[in-house]
Amino acid sequence: MDNRTELSELGEFGLIDRLTANFNQTQKSTIKGVGDDAAVIDCGDHYRVVTTDMLVEGVHFDLAYVPLKHLGYKAVVVNLSDIYAMNADACQITVSIAVSNRFSLEALEELYDGIKKACDLYQVDLVGGDTTSSLSGLVISVTAIGEVAKDKIAYRSGGKENELLVVTGNLGAAFMGLQVLEREKRIFIENPQIQPALEGVDFILERQLKPEARKDIIHFLNDLGVLPTSMIDISDGLVSEAMHLCKAGDLGCAIYDEKLPIDHETYRVAREFELDPSTCALNGGEDYELLFSIKQSDFEKIKGNEFMTVIGHYTDKGSGMNVIDRAGVSVPMQAQGWNHFS
Amino acid sequence: MDNRTELSELGEFGLIDRLTANFNQTQKSTIKGVGDDAAVIDCGDHYRVVTTDMLVEGVHFDLAYVPLKHLGYKAVVVNLSDIYAMNADACQITVSIAVSNRFSLEALEELYDGIKKACDLYQVDLVGGDTTSSLSGLVISVTAIGEVAKDKIAYRSGGKENELLVVTGNLGAAFMGLQVLEREKRIFIENPQIQPALEGVDFILERQLKPEARKDIIHFLNDLGVLPTSMIDISDGLVSEAMHLCKAGDLGCAIYDEKLPIDHETYRVAREFELDPSTCALNGGEDYELLFSIKQSDFEKIKGNEFMTVIGHYTDKGSGMNVIDRAGVSVPMQAQGWNHFS
Repeated sequence: MDNRTELSELGEFGLIDRLTANFNQTQKSTIKGVGDDAAVIDCGDHYRVVTTDMLVEGVHFDLAYVPLKHLGYKAVVVNLSDIYAMNADACQITVSIAVSNRFSLEALEELYDGIKKACDLYQVDLVGGDTTSSLSGLVISVTAIGEVAKDKIAYRSGGKENELLVVTGNLGAAFMGLQVLEREKRIFIENPQIQPALEGVDFILERQLKPEARKDIIHFLNDLGVLPTSMIDISDGLVSEAMHLCKAGDLGCAIYDEKLPIDHETYRVAREFELDPSTCALNGGEDYELLFSIKQSDFEKIKGNEFMTVIGHYTDKGSGMNVIDRAGVSVPMQAQGWNHFS
Repeated sequence: MDNRTELSELGEFGLIDRLTANFNQTQKSTIKGVGDDAAVIDCGDHYRVVTTDMLVEGVHFDLAYVPLKHLGYKAVVVNLSDIYAMNADACQITVSIAVSNRFSLEALEELYDGIKKACDLYQVDLVGGDTTSSLSGLVISVTAIGEVAKDKIAYRSGGKENELLVVTGNLGAAFMGLQVLEREKRIFIENPQIQPALEGVDFILERQLKPEARKDIIHFLNDLGVLPTSMIDISDGLVSEAMHLCKAGDLGCAIYDEKLPIDHETYRVAREFELDPSTCALNGGEDYELLFSIKQSDFEKIKGNEFMTVIGHYTDKGSGMNVIDRAGVSVPMQAQGWNHFS
């Protein structure tokens, strides 16, 4: 080959776009391919949705502080989150792992205990997978399959100008949990005698180590009679996901800094680390909350709900994608998604 | 943990059994989970089938002699083969890859060229995936989804005593192709000046580097009005797969050495390597042919067909699983499947 383009020049999304650009779709059951939280397959009276994620040791997790049981749980949850982000119910998963000989059967049983915990809680069935060896480290690839009525599916596209942007739960906690874990690992490496200082950070550690997917929200919205007009899950940070929604819907947005839901523990620990809590909420990844839009006429139905916060609204594309700071100044969003190749 | 059980003590199938033993199925759409070539999901008027495979550099492939384009092609084909082994049509795939920075965009484009070639030929749509970095090497995880009418699905179980065992194509070629590639790699390492001796081995090299899945057979059997009573694809070698069929069907079998279809090139090269061609056909992996059973009454329909060979029949379980050698002696089968952990 004459040319060599480094992967770090592209980033993950640029890379996927380049690699999948020339693929055609020939199956009439393929409703939606690459480009949303999950693919959509026509199954007659309903849609099946399919998503997949790969977790690599040393890239996505560090076994120095991530227990295998939590890792198994999280590997399932991050995929279910993508299914719920289509407003679908998760039904089945497959799990493939590549492991080196340094893992024992008992270690893998810990991993599968976590996978089973997630399957039991979210009521999904493990229906297949592959188990092989690797020369180094652990790789986990999970595929999740869900089901949704055709008139209930929520794509990233579908939002309209002036519709309200809603986020579930609170933001930035998983990111701050990671900061604490990395700090304690550094201290441990420097001095193994020092006990880790993990008091008062239970919430943010749990958000990092054992995140939950918002199945509850999907059912809750359905019960309320609210259909999200567009939706995505927050894996790479609020700003990155909001930009995905805007691009898919050919829209702009305004998100208000002062409205961001931040837990008091996240806020306090961010301050300890001399980080701006809003920045953590805007750009911290791995919260696995949902970001979606609703019609203004649905506002009364979710108003005052403790699990959902209106943080802004869609605008026309020309107005751009902006965060409105506490002084009322519009700051254009910049992509801060993880680039594993940099 | 008190105990440490090495993965090499279990082998792949033992490991999967142990890890998935405690999982429950709660979704009524789950018809078949772990334990066949693919999982089966009820979609109302038809079944969806789902399978997944992971290929790891240094374990499943060696980039010293496997071109990336062929690797991409093969990664898709091995999954489609599992779909066809359910007597289903393949419709969609997802592809996840983990790659280290030593790969360039151009290298990954080669890989995806191969994936696209397979998608085009087999008429399947790439609908999703994940792209991430790895600390070393390349990992590819493919999930394939297929569709089959409910009354056409073929499980590993379902065969009956005296039904005929049929194999497609010919056996042992991919294994001999691998032997040639490994020989040439050893020679190259010892003396990089020597040109590889790859004349007259085109067929077996292609069978190893660019295998095909037997979509044609599925359509052909359907046209003939022959419904396989049990079926599996041959990835780990004929004996290993025949044992899977027998165990799933609670049956024994007799397979006749003299009936094994072996290509003349496979035969000749096996002799050059001082290997028994029959042993290569019985235990060599990666042919991706189909092994299935048919009712005796269907024999006339496939008789004389160049793509299908009757190699034996099911017996009662008590008679065991046997290969009948050319002297008419029954030799009990022994599992020779790949154990990546040993």
